[in-house]
Amino acid sequence: MHLKRLTLPPGVRDTDPVTWLQREQIVHTMTSIFQKYGFTPLATPALEYLDVLTDHYGQEGEQLVFKVLDSGNFLRDVQQADWHQDPKILARKIAHKGLRYDLTVPLARYIATHKHKLTFPFKRYQIQPVWRADRPQKGRYREFYQCDVDVVGTTSLHCEAELLAIAREVLHELQVVDATIALNHRQILQALAVEIGMEGQETALCVILDKYHHIGQKGVLEQLKTYVSDSALTKITWIFSLSGTLKEQLSDLANKLDHLPQGQAAIHDLETLLKYTDTLMPQGVDIQLMPTLARGMTYYTGAIFEVAVHGAELGSVAGGGRYDHLAEHFGLTNASGVGLSFGLDRLYQALEILGLLPDMRSSTTQVLVTFLEEAVQERALAIAASLRKQHVATEHFPVVSKLKKQLHYADKKQIPWVVLLGQAELELDTLHVRNMHTGIQEHCAIETLVDWVCAGNKNDSRT
Amino acid sequence: MHLKRLTLPPGVRDTDPVTWLQREQIVHTMTSIFQKYGFTPLATPALEYLDVLTDHYGQEGEQLVFKVLDSGNFLRDVQQADWHQDPKILARKIAHKGLRYDLTVPLARYIATHKHKLTFPFKRYQIQPVWRADRPQKGRYREFYQCDVDVVGTTSLHCEAELLAIAREVLHELQVVDATIALNHRQILQALAVEIGMEGQETALCVILDKYHHIGQKGVLEQLKTYVSDSALTKITWIFSLSGTLKEQLSDLANKLDHLPQGQAAIHDLETLLKYTDTLMPQGVDIQLMPTLARGMTYYTGAIFEVAVHGAELGSVAGGGRYDHLAEHFGLTNASGVGLSFGLDRLYQALEILGLLPDMRSSTTQVLVTFLEEAVQERALAIAASLRKQHVATEHFPVVSKLKKQLHYADKKQIPWVVLLGQAELELDTLHVRNMHTGIQEHCAIETLVDWVCAGNKNDSRT
Repeated sequence: MHLKRLTLPPGVRDTDPVTWLQREQIVHTMTSIFQKYGFTPLATPALEYLDVLTDHYGQEGEQLVFKVLDSGNFLRDVQQADWHQDPKILARKIAHKGLRYDLTVPLARYIATHKHKLTFPFKRYQIQPVWRADRPQKGRYREFYQCDVDVVGTTSLHCEAELLAIAREVLHELQVVDATIALNHRQILQALAVEIGMEGQETALCVILDKYHHIGQKGVLEQLKTYVSDSALTKITWIFSLSGTLKEQLSDLANKLDHLPQGQAAIHDLETLLKYTDTLMPQGVDIQLMPTLARGMTYYTGAIFEVAVHGAELGSVAGGGRYDHLAEHFGLTNASGVGLSFGLDRLYQALEILGLLPDMRSSTTQVLVTFLEEAVQERALAIAASLRKQHVATEHFPVVSKLKKQLHYADKKQIPWVVLLGQAELELDTLHVRNMHTGIQEHCAIETLVDWVCAGNKNDSRT
Repeated sequence: MHLKRLTLPPGVRDTDPVTWLQREQIVHTMTSIFQKYGFTPLATPALEYLDVLTDHYGQEGEQLVFKVLDSGNFLRDVQQADWHQDPKILARKIAHKGLRYDLTVPLARYIATHKHKLTFPFKRYQIQPVWRADRPQKGRYREFYQCDVDVVGTTSLHCEAELLAIAREVLHELQVVDATIALNHRQILQALAVEIGMEGQETALCVILDKYHHIGQKGVLEQLKTYVSDSALTKITWIFSLSGTLKEQLSDLANKLDHLPQGQAAIHDLETLLKYTDTLMPQGVDIQLMPTLARGMTYYTGAIFEVAVHGAELGSVAGGGRYDHLAEHFGLTNASGVGLSFGLDRLYQALEILGLLPDMRSSTTQVLVTFLEEAVQERALAIAASLRKQHVATEHFPVVSKLKKQLHYADKKQIPWVVLLGQAELELDTLHVRNMHTGIQEHCAIETLVDWVCAGNKNDSRT
């Protein structure tokens, strides 16, 4: 037999039971909040046509879409001459499907497809994996989960405010206190471009500003110098040092950009949505205006935001913004949307670093029924069945083994109760039960054990 | 702008909010039961090396694995001569990763990788999508969810019995009464092969028997005639008509096959595991011995089983069996396993056909706060915030609109309560609330509305 290698492709991972249970708890926290704000779930397939997936993410993004080879004879439409073409062109002839790169483009495709049966504004959340052929590195994976909330079909700033409120609630429920929601607006970036004479070069400006956290103020200014003069740049050095309360930041921003129509529009939007946010969810992590926040995605048109958890150097754990034109690619106009996307893997890592992950036993089993002699087999199965009937998660050891081995099993799986069942116990009406935490063994009726387990559940945040 | 097509690739689907909520409820039912039997969750990545995914499913299965084009210049290892090869051989040079075809092979790979840190017997459940480049047809998709439970690391027949008990509990909880668990054993099939002189041709025999539901007894016998004589076939025509109680079926089977060692071994296994099942879960859908059940998967070695729901002509909704050698491909011996896999999409369809799907509103929102004049905006947001604080799922309409439009929105989303909020209501301390079910409008305190919503939740299975 050919022995197979055991590795996984770079950038993808297994999720062990404890991690999965913790992730489920985080997801449950989020979905409860999403539903409280009136969002309903949606799921789209992993496989979409490449025609649908491309043209949204910029050239760099395109290259990161995983392409799926056509089934059967994938060479059917390929000519001899095609082999000598650019592999990118050849790829489009042998692969017509790809794996979704995010959840926003599939949402736009979904809405355009189903517009006649949907109720607008359409509010949905979606929690699914996405795939990107990125260079794997610490905290960056090729398969990772996004948790998205979007409202499509209205330009109301209520929606931005709801998303900021949701971000605050999610962080609060996960006990993350030390975090910041950075807020900016695409029209601020446009105003900055006008200010320094980079009008029409907004994309280049955004690419440079996005590097701020890596290369700092000096690096950003250095790179901008290839586009504009030193004297122009002095007009915007204030963007690195906006400070004070949110009100002061807004007022500073107005002082600097109110003379430009894009600036006026953006400041009006920001003021309004912050006022709404203050009504919806006044408490929670800090919101700060950050004129350097650009977010690479080319499809944003209005407010943009990003959530960073301090003390966990991971980049952002969530981000989003308003996109006016995304669904137009699919023939749907007047469908402005706004969305917020949590990166579940980033969020998990941040909680891990901060020691905020829910404490979990390595299994959800409450009771192990041991199996010490063949003669007790029927009784062991009957006890397990009886406990399960009373909703107690129960395992019975499947083969006769030494007690030590079975206790080791219970210990490794952190099962809190063990029913000891040998020949001696067969004569008894009661159970012989060991509390794995205290080591105490005593005899009790099955109902008493059920009570102990339930009491344990209440006292034990881990179950 | 290039206008994109809106279709999805064949065989994949969107899942709308109601369907997703219903599926979540089915999954929740299953996971509760899996956990009650001591199984913990596991997740593996969608992307695995093709080297891992292949060699398990037979030649036909191999072709159904979706292959992912290598990133970057996928032609780097391709020579001119390769173009003229079989596309299958070329595929292996330009695609090294694929999408998982099932959850069993990734489980074997996971266990072999992590054997030193796992506790055996290893009991896990896993609920994730799988992909198969099958010809799409009614009830058969290219992307579908499997819900698997497996025990690996023991040959104890307790495990088979647990899986049958789980199948019964899942069907019971989903209120499916009219279903059958068909049970067979690979050694029964081997005994049949010996009986008719097809020893060494078990695979061919299984392929033919697997068609029984499509081609009937006559068809099966017809196809077997190309291998064996008519007189040999008369020795096994009884396999189509095993009947009576389970005990009678077992006794019949023993009469027919007890003279062969494979028959003896299989009958002993079946008797034992049925005795265990009877202790663990005596009630539930019928279990029947079905000597024609073969299940295509080449990796089964012991008991095999399949669950069919009557009245829903969909094939099976679950199936599984024991596999002794699967992990050996990955260098792990002595890791016999047994698993049961529910097809979530099949199960959903069966419940739909039988009218057993959980009744769901088209959203989980409880209250809509209307927005009839600009002046009430702050109050609307404050009411929504206050209701959410009391865990009431609340939406506020995001733009001033006619009442009719906002009521239509509530109606379409089946939101049970609407807070009417115009200039007149601004003066009041109480809320003006409309019960969308009765049409009755009355004034009440916010706490009263919260009480009504909670009472509604209790009476309303839909929420």
